[in-house]
Amino acid sequence: MSDGAPRALFVGRFQPFHRGHLETIRAIRRGRPAEVVLIGIGSAQESYTRENPFTAGERFEMIELSLQEAHLSDAIPVPIPDIHRHALWVRYVEGLLPPFARVYTNNPLTRILFETGGYTVESPTLFERERWEGLQIRAALERGSPVDSLVPPAVAQWLDRHQASARLRSIGENWATPSRRP
Amino acid sequence: MSDGAPRALFVGRFQPFHRGHLETIRAIRRGRPAEVVLIGIGSAQESYTRENPFTAGERFEMIELSLQEAHLSDAIPVPIPDIHRHALWVRYVEGLLPPFARVYTNNPLTRILFETGGYTVESPTLFERERWEGLQIRAALERGSPVDSLVPPAVAQWLDRHQASARLRSIGENWATPSRRP
Amino acid sequence: MSDGAPRALFVGRFQPFHRGHLETIRAIRRGRPAEVVLIGIGSAQESYTRENPFTAGERFEMIELSLQEAHLSDAIPVPIPDIHRHALWVRYVEGLLPPFARVYTNNPLTRILFETGGYTVESPTLFERERWEGLQIRAALERGSPVDSLVPPAVAQWLDRHQASARLRSIGENWATPSRRP
Amino acid sequence: MSDGAPRALFVGRFQPFHRGHLETIRAIRRGRPAEVVLIGIGSAQESYTRENPFTAGERFEMIELSLQEAHLSDAIPVPIPDIHRHALWVRYVEGLLPPFARVYTNNPLTRILFETGGYTVESPTLFERERWEGLQIRAALERGSPVDSLVPPAVAQWLDRHQASARLRSIGENWATPSRRP
Amino acid sequence: MSDGAPRALFVGRFQPFHRGHLETIRAIRRGRPAEVVLIGIGSAQESYTRENPFTAGERFEMIELSLQEAHLSDAIPVPIPDIHRHALWVRYVEGLLPPFARVYTNNPLTRILFETGGYTVESPTLFERERWEGLQIRAALERGSPVDSLVPPAVAQWLDRHQASARLRSIGENWATPSRRP
Amino acid sequence: MSDGAPRALFVGRFQPFHRGHLETIRAIRRGRPAEVVLIGIGSAQESYTRENPFTAGERFEMIELSLQEAHLSDAIPVPIPDIHRHALWVRYVEGLLPPFARVYTNNPLTRILFETGGYTVESPTLFERERWEGLQIRAALERGSPVDSLVPPAVAQWLDRHQASARLRSIGENWATPSRRP
Repeated sequence: MSDGAPRALFVGRFQPFHRGHLETIRAIRRGRPAEVVLIGIGSAQESYTRENPFTAGERFEMIELSLQEAHLSDAIPVPIPDIHRHALWVRYVEGLLPPFARVYTNNPLTRILFETGGYTVESPTLFERERWEGLQIRAALERGSPVDSLVPPAVAQWLDRHQASARLRSIGENWATPSRRP
Repeated sequence: MSDGAPRALFVGRFQPFHRGHLETIRAIRRGRPAEVVLIGIGSAQESYTRENPFTAGERFEMIELSLQEAHLSDAIPVPIPDIHRHALWVRYVEGLLPPFARVYTNNPLTRILFETGGYTVESPTLFERERWEGLQIRAALERGSPVDSLVPPAVAQWLDRHQASARLRSIGENWATPSRRP
Repeated sequence: MSDGAPRALFVGRFQPFHRGHLETIRAIRRGRPAEVVLIGIGSAQESYTRENPFTAGERFEMIELSLQEAHLSDAIPVPIPDIHRHALWVRYVEGLLPPFARVYTNNPLTRILFETGGYTVESPTLFERERWEGLQIRAALERGSPVDSLVPPAVAQWLDRHQASARLRSIGENWATPSRRP
Repeated sequence: MSDGAPRALFVGRFQPFHRGHLETIRAIRRGRPAEVVLIGIGSAQESYTRENPFTAGERFEMIELSLQEAHLSDAIPVPIPDIHRHALWVRYVEGLLPPFARVYTNNPLTRILFETGGYTVESPTLFERERWEGLQIRAALERGSPVDSLVPPAVAQWLDRHQASARLRSIGENWATPSRRP
Repeated sequence: MSDGAPRALFVGRFQPFHRGHLETIRAIRRGRPAEVVLIGIGSAQESYTRENPFTAGERFEMIELSLQEAHLSDAIPVPIPDIHRHALWVRYVEGLLPPFARVYTNNPLTRILFETGGYTVESPTLFERERWEGLQIRAALERGSPVDSLVPPAVAQWLDRHQASARLRSIGENWATPSRRP
Repeated sequence: MSDGAPRALFVGRFQPFHRGHLETIRAIRRGRPAEVVLIGIGSAQESYTRENPFTAGERFEMIELSLQEAHLSDAIPVPIPDIHRHALWVRYVEGLLPPFARVYTNNPLTRILFETGGYTVESPTLFERERWEGLQIRAALERGSPVDSLVPPAVAQWLDRHQASARLRSIGENWATPSRRP
């Protein structure tokens, strides 16, 4: 359909972007050097919650800084706001992005939705290992524990510079108090 | 207000349509043969979640096949997407459907909203028995247990033909993993 | 995909339901007696505007009364609220309705969207004649001119009983005054 | 229903608040001194368009300053964002405001919607005179003509202090160029 | 920016308005008598849920009656519907209200959002004591326990007159039954 | 704020991407070679209308192919769906994108919104010339006239390969017929 380079889609929420994500992109780029990787930033409209502490723009910046630091090219972040209708989600993503030939994810729901839509979905083994990392990194930030071994150096600096730990702690307090939202 | 047949509204989510639902419709039709039953498919925009695994269209089809199989006529499915504003819900349903004189439900919230709106709400005894069935049938499908005794034959075949069990399992895995959504 | 009767979809806004619509349904039913006709009531969320004076529920009722009067069975009205995203519209309709094999419409945009989605779209010749009728009937109602020759008797009575002419006139005044909306 | 003072609702968009609006409120207050006037600021989500140049907050401020200047009390501005569903609008407004016994408006659509909802709607004669003023004042601002005779002194100062004329001119240029929006 | 009185914003959900809220407003008014207090009714679109049983209009009325009873003036309720985008929330509130100089809240998330937006946020000590009251009052209403010592007399009467206890019980039953919503 | 390269934002709807757009990007890249250009694809949710015939994904692809053809790097397309609230738009864009230091646009409304938000907005002279081109190119496509001199070769090929002319004609017919939308 397209004359340009073939493309793959790697979907995640990247809260925050961590080493598992970076290694996955490196593996995709190595396996298919001609393929551009679209990095779909899911739940782009969310921020300042325990599950989604960072805005799409902040996640975009962390990804871009990490890719530069790792000398990875041909990987492009794209914010994808939720539409809250699972049955339309694949068609919605198709309307937002240029054509892609392959999807990378370990999320079982993303997998079933794209497979139902006729896509080839791959889950690199290495990817599997990072399964719980997003949740663990957010918990570590909330506690004030160091996360340097879990995220690329550029992300560690970003989190520090933007006082991510204080933000997570404020958000956490809110959730500790039932029924408290603005 | 209307010259045509009187109508009743039976509201549910029908995830999936089961024997309790069918028997309720049979009882309504028997009790008031002149009354058309509007079958309001609630949360019509939802699908591929644990609580709402099937699209409104899929639920519509299961209901239609079951009614045909049971030789029940004058019962019409109508998808009702949520508007996420309880105080407007009754008025919203009134704007979507032809006038109805009576509401059937066992859901306490649906009951209070329609009663506040001035409607007569009935809860057939038989209806009471199926209280937990929707949840149990979805749990059975997720485990891979047979559901033939719980749903009309037409629904059992539909669920089989559409690999409902595999879908529920994929969705379930997603939910087993906190913070995983597309 | 489905064991039940094959289905066709006839899409319109039915503001109001008129003789052209009724004849089209009669022709579809005659041409394929085994096929159930889903009557998709488009822009279901709209009402009290010049283009869409009647609520989906009111249109539903007018259609139902007309079908009864004309002894037409196996034709089922279904409200379809807009989602305001054309590229997702066909997929959205598929998620709301049971599977259908064919689409009837004379609207060029509906045609191109369903054809892009892989559907067979038919436009019965007779259908062509009613092209402008909806607009003309609304204009006649606004002026207070009779519409009895343009709509089925059941609709004429409904419009009379619900003082449609007065409603159209009020709405029209609003539009005659620029920048006036509630 | 309520033990407090009776209330009336005066609905408008107040783009901007002008002398006709102020005189209407004065007349309502004089006619029924015991009645609190809720000033519903319609289309509250709109701003920076030709029809709705000012934010709800800016309109709120202009109203408040004018009421202070005119020594009018017991009149309270309330922003009302659109819900884009006319058939639900009255019920929606009821859910947003404390109970009110009477509605003041000259807008034919607002009138028909509230009358259909069972309300008494009044249109003070004096009100009639200001029919086109909102549109004229916006046009004058866009041209850079003085509006001091058309709006209360407090509004004239506000418009001046916030460079309303420049804003209207920028917006107008945008609209003069078809297909130009951000 | 504004020629009128300076304003402060006090944000809450007021489900229901209780003595802690009233004392906070009294303290703000006493501390800065020249300052008008905007009482932002958050989650204004919510009602008939366990966390948000009352509509914005009902909360507005309870607040107004309490202020009258306590002879507190210059405090104005304003409904604020959610926009479900935390990063935009402060800017959204600014577009809905006249300019305010200070924010009062004990909610950690509201605090961080307004502080990030450059506002001074204060949390009066007395305020601290009422931390859990909203939740406790709703639980008491659901159980049918008296709440007279927790809310202003005007609210106690309102709750009684509107059978709040029965409403809370109906809603509670709904939540006790998993997967039951209209 | 950011350690990476400085960024500029170039906002448009790109319906379709044409030579004026390409020359603008070339000029920005030449003027500030160290600056990454974020190409904001506005009204990303729109498609299949006369003003917005192409989906965001299609526009993304046309931009990407043109940049490759022109050997322009460090320019990244990003879809930006509308939020329909002008007063929040700049803040919304900030939450979707990494930090940018400068905005390029000739649209008066985009200019006033970003200037009000404190940004430097530039309008390159060359940019001025293409003012009407988007509209003219869509009109030419609808008529079936050649557009090769107006768009980059890669876009001309894309439009041809995707039968853009036929799509525009179908959409145009729809608009020629009042009150016709799906």
